Amino acid sequence: MTAASTTQTRTIRILDTTLRDGEQTPGVSLTTDDKIEIAQQLSKLGVDIIEAGFPSSSEGEKRVVRDIAKLGLTSEICALSRAKRSDIDAALDCDVDLIHVFIPTSPVQMKYAVNLTPEQVLESAVDSIEYVKKHGVKCEFSPMDATRSELPFIKQICQAAQTAGMDSLNVPDTVGIMIPKTTTQLIAELKTVVSVPLSIHCHDDFGLAVANSLAAVEAGASQIHTAVNGLGERAGNAALEEVVTTLHVVYQYKTNINTRLLYNTSRLVSSLTGIQVQANKAIVGENAFAHESGIHTRGVTEQPLTFEPINPELVGRTRKLVAGKLAGTRGIQATLTEIGINPTEEQLNEIVKRVKDLGDKGKLVTDADLLALTSAVMGEVIGEQKIVDLCDLAVITGIKVIPTASVRLTLDGKEYIASETGVGPVDAVLKAISKLTNNLEKIRISEYRLEAITGGSNAVAEVIIKVEDEKGNIISARAAREDIVMASVEAMINGINKCLLKNRSTKQETKP
Amino acid sequence: MTAASTTQTRTIRILDTTLRDGEQTPGVSLTTDDKIEIAQQLSKLGVDIIEAGFPSSSEGEKRVVRDIAKLGLTSEICALSRAKRSDIDAALDCDVDLIHVFIPTSPVQMKYAVNLTPEQVLESAVDSIEYVKKHGVKCEFSPMDATRSELPFIKQICQAAQTAGMDSLNVPDTVGIMIPKTTTQLIAELKTVVSVPLSIHCHDDFGLAVANSLAAVEAGASQIHTAVNGLGERAGNAALEEVVTTLHVVYQYKTNINTRLLYNTSRLVSSLTGIQVQANKAIVGENAFAHESGIHTRGVTEQPLTFEPINPELVGRTRKLVAGKLAGTRGIQATLTEIGINPTEEQLNEIVKRVKDLGDKGKLVTDADLLALTSAVMGEVIGEQKIVDLCDLAVITGIKVIPTASVRLTLDGKEYIASETGVGPVDAVLKAISKLTNNLEKIRISEYRLEAITGGSNAVAEVIIKVEDEKGNIISARAAREDIVMASVEAMINGINKCLLKNRSTKQETKP
Repeated sequence: MTAASTTQTRTIRILDTTLRDGEQTPGVSLTTDDKIEIAQQLSKLGVDIIEAGFPSSSEGEKRVVRDIAKLGLTSEICALSRAKRSDIDAALDCDVDLIHVFIPTSPVQMKYAVNLTPEQVLESAVDSIEYVKKHGVKCEFSPMDATRSELPFIKQICQAAQTAGMDSLNVPDTVGIMIPKTTTQLIAELKTVVSVPLSIHCHDDFGLAVANSLAAVEAGASQIHTAVNGLGERAGNAALEEVVTTLHVVYQYKTNINTRLLYNTSRLVSSLTGIQVQANKAIVGENAFAHESGIHTRGVTEQPLTFEPINPELVGRTRKLVAGKLAGTRGIQATLTEIGINPTEEQLNEIVKRVKDLGDKGKLVTDADLLALTSAVMGEVIGEQKIVDLCDLAVITGIKVIPTASVRLTLDGKEYIASETGVGPVDAVLKAISKLTNNLEKIRISEYRLEAITGGSNAVAEVIIKVEDEKGNIISARAAREDIVMASVEAMINGINKCLLKNRSTKQETKP
Repeated sequence: MTAASTTQTRTIRILDTTLRDGEQTPGVSLTTDDKIEIAQQLSKLGVDIIEAGFPSSSEGEKRVVRDIAKLGLTSEICALSRAKRSDIDAALDCDVDLIHVFIPTSPVQMKYAVNLTPEQVLESAVDSIEYVKKHGVKCEFSPMDATRSELPFIKQICQAAQTAGMDSLNVPDTVGIMIPKTTTQLIAELKTVVSVPLSIHCHDDFGLAVANSLAAVEAGASQIHTAVNGLGERAGNAALEEVVTTLHVVYQYKTNINTRLLYNTSRLVSSLTGIQVQANKAIVGENAFAHESGIHTRGVTEQPLTFEPINPELVGRTRKLVAGKLAGTRGIQATLTEIGINPTEEQLNEIVKRVKDLGDKGKLVTDADLLALTSAVMGEVIGEQKIVDLCDLAVITGIKVIPTASVRLTLDGKEYIASETGVGPVDAVLKAISKLTNNLEKIRISEYRLEAITGGSNAVAEVIIKVEDEKGNIISARAAREDIVMASVEAMINGINKCLLKNRSTKQETKP
């Protein structure tokens, strides 16, 4: 059974509002440089229109929108504006390609958000659109809260907006109360009164933003408003990566998006906004292409299609097999092979059994655990193959104290000492270790990641560190400890050992 | 326009699989105690069936399922089983109410995941269902990967399963490739051949799990498989909180769920699994009921319905207004009022202007920033109203070093000194401060939260601390610094000051 029953190949346009609605995410505040970096990435990704901001909200915002418009990106640049001449003037000042004019049309928002009568709303909308068009700029019009508006009024204002010259009509589901069925109905109704292209802007309050956006496309909308990682007011907007991947893979429609850049775009936005993507988020979450349970890992190693609806490469990712209590033999074998360890079938079964035992105790099976188990089972000194071992460590921080760390470690049995200062204790100690390993083995940290901690200050901190060798090989290692500093150190040392272990086993293999 | 067009009140059953598919989330490993705590919470929440685990996967898993079945919860307890007698025996040993038997039915999974012919699959399914029923236990049957199976074969096996005695049929969208329209079609097709209750199990690979689950209900399914926070393999399952809230609010259907417990259930599962919920996640994300932009904050303070589709109390939450560069006057006023500060209208406008300036620089406006701005504008010594002030601090950790902190602070100008050890440097320093403030003012930490850090070890760490006074008032404060230890300390001191400030201003107000 194929999911989409249509055969025609439509191209759907993407207006991305990460920089506008996305930046309204509570707690997010981007610098001009951040916004420019995101705009450049969105243009590279192939977004048709970038909604760059809301110029009338502050002087700084106006400057940023103008700066983005000046970049000469492939994407068209759009500015948001209330249906007010002063707002439109601010947007015009930014030299954008498109002005997105909005005004509330639902009874509750007309009364309480703007305190205008329906007649005043209609008049402001028409005047604003005419004002934009008089300046030779394209205009997209949004009857805000369209999905809670009275249908006759919405139809009336959309017709008037078309007469006034709007180039496209956007239908905002401002508080996310639609379901796919009602979205299809509303778009179909509006198509009876306007002939300009229709767009949809969905919010995810009930978790239906993506489904509603696609339902609008089914009913004939040709543009979707999205935000990277589903950012935006409250529960956010329709996630760019989900909308686009579904259009490509399930509907077999086209967009101008280069899907292979979706993951990197997500990472960039997450790191600049500080809003983490949850592990089980579709397409871009850490686990979206990870498999742990035995049935699944065996399946995907035999034939990826068994449990992988999307080729990870399509969205710029790779498959990940995870060791754990539900893990199967093949998944654990794949993990070990990756670092050059090849147990016999009998040894492998024993390793799997011990991984499950550890998991049953509620323990997260870290890479270090897996190595320890494996070395015990194989009777080899994999545990002792610690090429780098930490002997001493002292870290201090405080008020009027420069965070400082000193470290003594052995590399192939030879002792080295270093000290460093940093912006904090973790930074100091990782810099001290890096100083030695980078000098001696050209291994450096490429990424540091600390998982969020909730609960108490004595909760377990989980650190994932990626280290990179001179050939660009990247190895990730994790550690979990109650002491954030020690967890970071352990993850770093694990990563360095894994990296060295791999390099040396590769060298041995390539010997004649 | 109302979203649902039906008027009948149906009751939809919830089978929650947080403890089974949710625990297959890569990286998640729960202890027996964790699982029992979650099972108790799910039962309290009103889940109809708890899928407690997959007994044949390990001895530990079997013990846990049996322990949960023994709890005598209101919810029915279900165990997962492959269509194999040995698996069913393991499930029967656990004394569960219901056994959920599954076997792949799609060509790709029959060939590569289990290597069986369609005839063998059909035979195993029938034999397994009959075997379960012979033991007097209820049986739910799942043709795994139903949505990629050939329709004639699926119909054939479902009919055979019904003849064999299955009590309900679950339709797994194992790799999440459905859209609402195709889900409705498939359920309608299956209803033509089976008469037992239909259930749906959706995965979120394209972000459509919730929409597809609801589409199945529209087509006549009466049960949905869910997981708290949308946990599960890869991108996870349909999120319990989204499915249930939409059924109640949009469809006006019933479930047996007490929605007011949804948020606490989400928090519990997040803290025990270690899988963070992203800020912009519907219903349970930190921002789901937060408002920052001026238009929105003014709207919701006038009339919540303007921008709030769900009453936060319905799902056990409260509204949150956030100061930021897009914040409006009313939002900032509400934040200040909460801590007993009442600027004049003129002062308020100046504070808002300065908040926007700070935001334009890309700065996160922390509570401390807001207080500092406010004190500068009001010409009052709000900044100096630091009832508690930190003078000296030293923290040390390392190898063979017990993490230790010493602290000197003033409370109302009087000096106090304390030292403490802890499991790590943050724990030690917060314990040292708590020792003093808990003794002197009965203020203690009720929650510590460190946001995830990605990038480098010198990235900014954001800490949110909730402190609680003896009357149970909870105040939250945040701080952002590159040094994790210092960010934690600053958040703690901010929280204590806000708490004391509030208590003292309340006392003054209640004076005659």
